[in-house]
Amino acid sequence: MSGVTKKHRVAIVGSGNWGTTIAKVVAENTREHPDEFEEEVQMWVFEEDVQLSKDSKHYKANSALASKPQKLTHLINELHENVKYLAGISLPTNLIANADLLDTVKGATILVFNLPHQFIGKTCDDIEGHVVPFARGISCIKGVEVTDDGCHLFSDRIGEKLGIYCGALSGANIANEVALEKFSETTIAYAPPAMDHHEPGESSAPSSNSKSGLKAIPAEYPELCHASMKKLFHRPYFHVRVTDDVAGVSLGGALKNIVALAAGFVDGLGWGDNAKAAIMRVGIMEEVKFGKMFFGSSSKPETFTEESCGVADLITSCSGGRNFRCAKMSVAERVDIHEIERRELNGQKLQGTSTAAEVNSFLKANGKEGEFPLFTAVHYILEGKARPEDLPELLEPTVHEKS
Amino acid sequence: MSGVTKKHRVAIVGSGNWGTTIAKVVAENTREHPDEFEEEVQMWVFEEDVQLSKDSKHYKANSALASKPQKLTHLINELHENVKYLAGISLPTNLIANADLLDTVKGATILVFNLPHQFIGKTCDDIEGHVVPFARGISCIKGVEVTDDGCHLFSDRIGEKLGIYCGALSGANIANEVALEKFSETTIAYAPPAMDHHEPGESSAPSSNSKSGLKAIPAEYPELCHASMKKLFHRPYFHVRVTDDVAGVSLGGALKNIVALAAGFVDGLGWGDNAKAAIMRVGIMEEVKFGKMFFGSSSKPETFTEESCGVADLITSCSGGRNFRCAKMSVAERVDIHEIERRELNGQKLQGTSTAAEVNSFLKANGKEGEFPLFTAVHYILEGKARPEDLPELLEPTVHEKS
Repeated sequence: MSGVTKKHRVAIVGSGNWGTTIAKVVAENTREHPDEFEEEVQMWVFEEDVQLSKDSKHYKANSALASKPQKLTHLINELHENVKYLAGISLPTNLIANADLLDTVKGATILVFNLPHQFIGKTCDDIEGHVVPFARGISCIKGVEVTDDGCHLFSDRIGEKLGIYCGALSGANIANEVALEKFSETTIAYAPPAMDHHEPGESSAPSSNSKSGLKAIPAEYPELCHASMKKLFHRPYFHVRVTDDVAGVSLGGALKNIVALAAGFVDGLGWGDNAKAAIMRVGIMEEVKFGKMFFGSSSKPETFTEESCGVADLITSCSGGRNFRCAKMSVAERVDIHEIERRELNGQKLQGTSTAAEVNSFLKANGKEGEFPLFTAVHYILEGKARPEDLPELLEPTVHEKS
Repeated sequence: MSGVTKKHRVAIVGSGNWGTTIAKVVAENTREHPDEFEEEVQMWVFEEDVQLSKDSKHYKANSALASKPQKLTHLINELHENVKYLAGISLPTNLIANADLLDTVKGATILVFNLPHQFIGKTCDDIEGHVVPFARGISCIKGVEVTDDGCHLFSDRIGEKLGIYCGALSGANIANEVALEKFSETTIAYAPPAMDHHEPGESSAPSSNSKSGLKAIPAEYPELCHASMKKLFHRPYFHVRVTDDVAGVSLGGALKNIVALAAGFVDGLGWGDNAKAAIMRVGIMEEVKFGKMFFGSSSKPETFTEESCGVADLITSCSGGRNFRCAKMSVAERVDIHEIERRELNGQKLQGTSTAAEVNSFLKANGKEGEFPLFTAVHYILEGKARPEDLPELLEPTVHEKS
């Protein structure tokens, strides 16, 4: 690596439950790989005033901080804990909370996006023109946007807006479990297009990919390849596998919510473990088919069948996720799922119900409803146009396909 | 199908919980497809004397049968219920219990084997030379025999002994749930070698496959292809997919038990859903690798990742199967698993512990232990040479493979 004189600087955009967890992972790793990354990691925090609760372990020891509401960034930087969104977890001291978005991303060559999807637009608007031109992004935002026009990946939206390459991270990753360093795995999709050759010293006029217009990383910096992604995200308790399939990684996190509803329906009927496993298997197959049909060869079956973002994430969502639980209650109690949603989720919304409707509308617009009997059945059950009891019959065509 | 004048006659060898369930499925289907199958299905029953219990719904209505112990075959044929092994389930009246093994298989062109694996040898010895030479077999016996010499499929053992082709059926099929007609799926592997061409009228000297010596089905009979298997086993509540991969279908049912132990270990540690899903994913990948390494191109990755006999069966086993439950209790209570086995299983044995030992010994004999870190870790944990807490570290090499 002759010619490499600089290090990558990482910024985390977002600091909720999952955002702070990923920031912890990344900051642990920049500290462990000081040859490639600057140790300090900036994390953008949406500033708010927070009153330390009496239950906090910091309450007694920090009487000054506890006496009145404090800025969240100040509390994070003083206590090395996100007392509001990830209470009880010690954060690395090289992770710095920053309320200034532009200051957070300034000079960062790696941008990790981890915020609720509804804030992507505004956030990208704000930082457009202020990011390093050859920066690389990783979106940790679950799911895809489905409209009748098509399926849009959040990573593409970010990348196109900012003029940078953006990959994706998704997996069977319940944030609190990862924060507690309980074992899990994740999948990172990272495949920037090939760039023109660049030589040390050329960095003032970086080369680029002629088609995409993306800028190559100057030779003064370490390469950013699959192995670098592993260095940045892999931990002894958080195992990383890297793939090229951005579409597959993103789709799994959206479509699994439809499958989890169906798993909840059959479990609510008391149909047992065979039925639930059958629904999950059919669900994986429809994910594979969806990827192939709408993303072509860029989406690989193995992403759904073999990776954490596919089969494993689907398994956790069908085990105890909120879509599964609410669907199960809805059928077991014979109560409308929206009523269960209101009762159980404190004003939050189920992801699966809107995804099922959006996907159904998209499939209909493409004349492909019949080829996805499970996705279609879930939507019709939610709409009251089919019953959970009809699922075996509705799924028979899929089953007949193979032979 | 000109020239077809005969129908296939089906016999079920075995009448336990799962045997009787499959017999019910098959007899329902022979009745629905009278053009291809003789309606009557004979089921071999290991004869025993059974006293109708006072709890039986038949007790009052059948005072004569209830007055003293009766032959099990007599009870099944009178009551259309296997009161001993599948109580409470009505059986089709065209299913006939038969205590005479040779009489059961006489003239049968389709033999369905569904008995405990330890009885295969003796049963095949008894019927050798008495089966229709061109008969086809389907083994519903889960698992494989693993010795240091190799992995042997039960279907091969049956087929070789009887000189017939034998396929396999396996899936996420808890017998009682299938018997209650709760929705499930299964996988059938059926791929007899190509036979020499045969013409109607040639049946007295049936053609055969020169390499295998297997006899072609005479032209007077309907063909037995994937579609026939579906006709014989598919029900509205029991969806069938047919594949050519006999090795994969059989391996899934054996190797999943090792994975279920590992899932139980991490669940016993309280590591949550991420960790359990990660273990399951790694387990599926080791199944794929095992199939490829030891059965070559005849075992396809999709059998494990996409079929009921693979991913779905693994999911049910890791949800509530006995291997999972006992492993979990063992770790949570810090009690040796063999003690849990004695306490919980009434003298029955866990399949997973012996499979883990056999597979480990086989892998060691082949110098491949290191390539299957999960299977290897489970064996060492059972042997007390590693701790469940070590799993993430022990699995890291697998994770690093991809990139």
